[in-house]
Amino acid sequence: MTATVIDGRAIAARMTAEVAQEAAALAQAGWEPRLVSISVGDVAAAELYVRNQRRQAEAAGVAFEARNYPETISLEQLTGVLAGLNADPRVNGIIIQRPLPAHIPVKALQKAVHPLKDVEGMHPASIGNIVYNDLALGPCTAVAAVEILKTLPLKVEGLDVCVIGHSEIVGKPIAFLMMGLGATVTVCHHMTRQVAVHSRAADAVFVAVGKPGLVTGNMLKPGAALIDIGINRVEGRTVGDADYDSCAEVAGWITPVPGGVGPVTVAVLLKNAVLATRMQRDHYSAAFAAAV
Amino acid sequence: MTATVIDGRAIAARMTAEVAQEAAALAQAGWEPRLVSISVGDVAAAELYVRNQRRQAEAAGVAFEARNYPETISLEQLTGVLAGLNADPRVNGIIIQRPLPAHIPVKALQKAVHPLKDVEGMHPASIGNIVYNDLALGPCTAVAAVEILKTLPLKVEGLDVCVIGHSEIVGKPIAFLMMGLGATVTVCHHMTRQVAVHSRAADAVFVAVGKPGLVTGNMLKPGAALIDIGINRVEGRTVGDADYDSCAEVAGWITPVPGGVGPVTVAVLLKNAVLATRMQRDHYSAAFAAAV
Repeated sequence: MTATVIDGRAIAARMTAEVAQEAAALAQAGWEPRLVSISVGDVAAAELYVRNQRRQAEAAGVAFEARNYPETISLEQLTGVLAGLNADPRVNGIIIQRPLPAHIPVKALQKAVHPLKDVEGMHPASIGNIVYNDLALGPCTAVAAVEILKTLPLKVEGLDVCVIGHSEIVGKPIAFLMMGLGATVTVCHHMTRQVAVHSRAADAVFVAVGKPGLVTGNMLKPGAALIDIGINRVEGRTVGDADYDSCAEVAGWITPVPGGVGPVTVAVLLKNAVLATRMQRDHYSAAFAAAV
Repeated sequence: MTATVIDGRAIAARMTAEVAQEAAALAQAGWEPRLVSISVGDVAAAELYVRNQRRQAEAAGVAFEARNYPETISLEQLTGVLAGLNADPRVNGIIIQRPLPAHIPVKALQKAVHPLKDVEGMHPASIGNIVYNDLALGPCTAVAAVEILKTLPLKVEGLDVCVIGHSEIVGKPIAFLMMGLGATVTVCHHMTRQVAVHSRAADAVFVAVGKPGLVTGNMLKPGAALIDIGINRVEGRTVGDADYDSCAEVAGWITPVPGGVGPVTVAVLLKNAVLATRMQRDHYSAAFAAAV
C-alpha cells in the first residue's frame, strides 16, 4: 500500500477544539451556541445521528436540544414549528434529521429554516451564496470533504479535480467550492459515458455516490488524492464507495470509511453552529444599535 | 466553413412570440406583466441596454418602466427603493442595470430584490434553486446559452461539455444547468493548466470570458458545438471570445456575435417576466383564499 491514510478523526478533533474555544467565548458574552434538532417519527438510523451529534456538540460547549415529532405531524404544523424556532433568539441553529416521512418534502423544510440558522447549509440561499463565493454556512459534508483536501500538500489552484456524484447537497457543492478555490473541476455521474477517462486525469477525486466498490485502483492516476464520502453497509461492515485495497495501492492519499469524512462532517456542523451564533449576535447588535 | 451558424435572432423571436401570448392572457386577467428597470448615474452603455430591453418588452406586451437615479444616491436609499418595488403588487420584475457606481456593491442590491421578482435570476436563492434543479427564474445569459444548445440535434444526457469561464452569473450557472440535464461538465478558467485538453474532448463548448480570440479552431473537436457568450469591442466591431473563422472551420455549430446569444438573453428576460407575474398571481390568490 502506497497511500497515506488520512486521519479524519484527528482533523475533526483539531476543528472541534477551535469550536470549543469560540463557543466558550460566546457563552461568556451571553450567547451560548444552541442547536435544535428536529426529527419526525420513530427511526433508529436518525436517532443514532442525533445521539452522535449531541455528544460531540456538548463536548464542544454547544448546547443541543433534540425534538422528536410524531409521524402524523403535517407539513403546515412542522413549518409552524420552524417559524417559532426562527423567531426564538435563544436558538442559533436548526437541524432537520432524515429520513422524513413520505408526506413531508425535505426541500420545503429546508427553505423554511431561516438562512441565518441554516447550520446544515441546505437553504437555497446558502447554496447560492457559495456559488457567489460568499461561503458562510456551507453544506456540512461537502465542506468537510474540501477541508480534508486542503490539509494535503497540494496546490489547489489549477488542480485537476474529478467529482463523482452530482447530488445537490454533496457533489455539486463540492464542485463549486473547489471551483472557488481555483481548481479545474469535472463532475461525473451515472449518465457519464466513461467516468474512468475523467477520474484518471485528475489529481484529486471526490466520490459520493453510494455504491460500494465503484472506484477501483485502475481509475486513479498514481499519487492522486481520493476523498471517499460514500457510506454503505456491506455484510455488516461500513464501507465507502472506493474499493479500498486496490485504490490504496495507487493513490497518494486516501480517506478511510469510517474515520475519514464522517467525523469531519460533524465538526463542520459545530463550526457552522458557532459561526451562525456569531452572525446572529452581530445582527441583533446592529438592530439594537440602529433602534437607539 | 463547415459549421452551421445558429440564428439567435430566430430563436429569440420564437420565444418572444410565446411570451407575447402569455402576456396577453395575463393582461386579460388583470395582471399585465410589468418590469421596472433601475439604473444609477449617467452611463451611455447602460442606456443602450435599457432602450433595447424596453423596445423588446413592449413589443411582447410586457410593460417597462425605466427609472434612473443620480450617481449620489446611497446604498440605503437604493435598498429603500427596492423595498418599495418589492411591496408594490403592480411591479412584477425588477432589473438592475450595470455598471453601478463604485459605492454601490451590486451583490447587496441583488440580495435586496425579492426572489419572486428576480427576473434577472441574480438573487442567491435563485442560483441555489438552480443547483437544486428547481429552475424558476434563472440568470438570463446562462439560461439563453443552454436554451440555444437544446435547439441542436444533440443528446444532452451524457454529453461531454466544457465551460470556459467560471463567473458567478454565467459560467457557473451554465455548468449547473447542463449538469441538471445530465451532461458531464468540466469548468475551465484562467487558472486551468491546459484549457485545450478539456475543450478538445468536449462535444459542446461554452465560452464566456471576455477575451477576443481566446478559442481557436484547434481547441475544438471536429463537429462540436460552440456557444460563444463573449461580447468584446475590437477596432470598432463587436466580436465574441472565439476566433470565428478558425472555429467555424472545425465546429459543427457556432453562435455568431452579435446575433447569437445576445438576442436570446433578452427573450429569456421576458420569459422570466411572464413567469414571475404568474408566480405572483398564484401567490396572491393563495394568500387571499387562505384569508377568506
